[in-house]
Amino acid sequence: MNKIITISRQFGSGGRTIGKLTAERLGIPCYDREIIEEVAKSSGFAKEYVEAHGEYADHRTWLGSAIKSANRFGGMTNQDKIWIEQRKLILEIAKSPCVIVGRCADYILKERDDVLNVFIHADTKFRAERIVKLYGEKADKPEKRLKDKDKRRAAYYKDYTETEWGVASNYHISLDSGKLGVENCVDLLEKIFSR
Amino acid sequence: MNKIITISRQFGSGGRTIGKLTAERLGIPCYDREIIEEVAKSSGFAKEYVEAHGEYADHRTWLGSAIKSANRFGGMTNQDKIWIEQRKLILEIAKSPCVIVGRCADYILKERDDVLNVFIHADTKFRAERIVKLYGEKADKPEKRLKDKDKRRAAYYKDYTETEWGVASNYHISLDSGKLGVENCVDLLEKIFSR
Repeated sequence: MNKIITISRQFGSGGRTIGKLTAERLGIPCYDREIIEEVAKSSGFAKEYVEAHGEYADHRTWLGSAIKSANRFGGMTNQDKIWIEQRKLILEIAKSPCVIVGRCADYILKERDDVLNVFIHADTKFRAERIVKLYGEKADKPEKRLKDKDKRRAAYYKDYTETEWGVASNYHISLDSGKLGVENCVDLLEKIFSR
Repeated sequence: MNKIITISRQFGSGGRTIGKLTAERLGIPCYDREIIEEVAKSSGFAKEYVEAHGEYADHRTWLGSAIKSANRFGGMTNQDKIWIEQRKLILEIAKSPCVIVGRCADYILKERDDVLNVFIHADTKFRAERIVKLYGEKADKPEKRLKDKDKRRAAYYKDYTETEWGVASNYHISLDSGKLGVENCVDLLEKIFSR
């Protein structure tokens, strides 16, 4: 019997919305931005800082990567500190049934067999239209924004889990929200979770 | 409205069984080994030869890959000939509703919007037990057999589609048959297809 749903998602795919709606249907809480707020409180970092460093690797040059590796020997980076706080919090909230969006929760809870790991994705056209509608136009084109965010999410995931983000076999179910529609995704997840 | 389901699958995941059962539920044909037989007839190659070269890249050394690339300029390999026949056949059978297992059907039909592309996978333990039950013990350990088959399927896919096999965003839905169970996978696909 499943107790937790983790949702990993491509930027703009509607994964967060799907997580929220599924949680509502199941009558359990959904943790997303709440995690940022809690980690900000417990770590002392600003909310914006936690948001920027709790799920996204920094932009990297080759030199940047080398410095990051060197830092690993020298001690913890701020990003590492945020990871540790986030991990602690996720282990804590996962004691009760809930939906957790992002933040490598699939990996953090991987030893448990009552967790359903979900990946939500969609093609570029669907996501580009969605982010412009949700977050407005910005200097960078939406396609560039998508690519950049996903790349940094994948790099962050790889940094801490040493596995590949977005590879089907790392999740129990992966859904194309553009093809299937957000409502259908929620229906499917509700059904699977309750079995 | 969907008309076709394509099923890509890790070796031993039960993807073929899920395809067959889903097709039965929907009252449409499922093409799997039938493709091998038809391609053997139309190409003149032996059935066993088509089976071995219609979905699996050869074992490769670095030198072998270089020779293969060189061959591409020199003319078609037998594998290329089988690919062409298979492609023709898949385009033909996809004129009517059906389920097609393997053979890059997802890629071959990618321009259509009435096709549901599915990827079935499961963890190594589930698949190892399954292949021993289905195909018996062999000289190679089941874990090695799984790894080898999947590697050659991925290489074949990459050769002809230039995209990555098993990456979630290449499919509309990916399911872990070990976690969800074969029957649940069939239920889900039936439901999604009919929407």
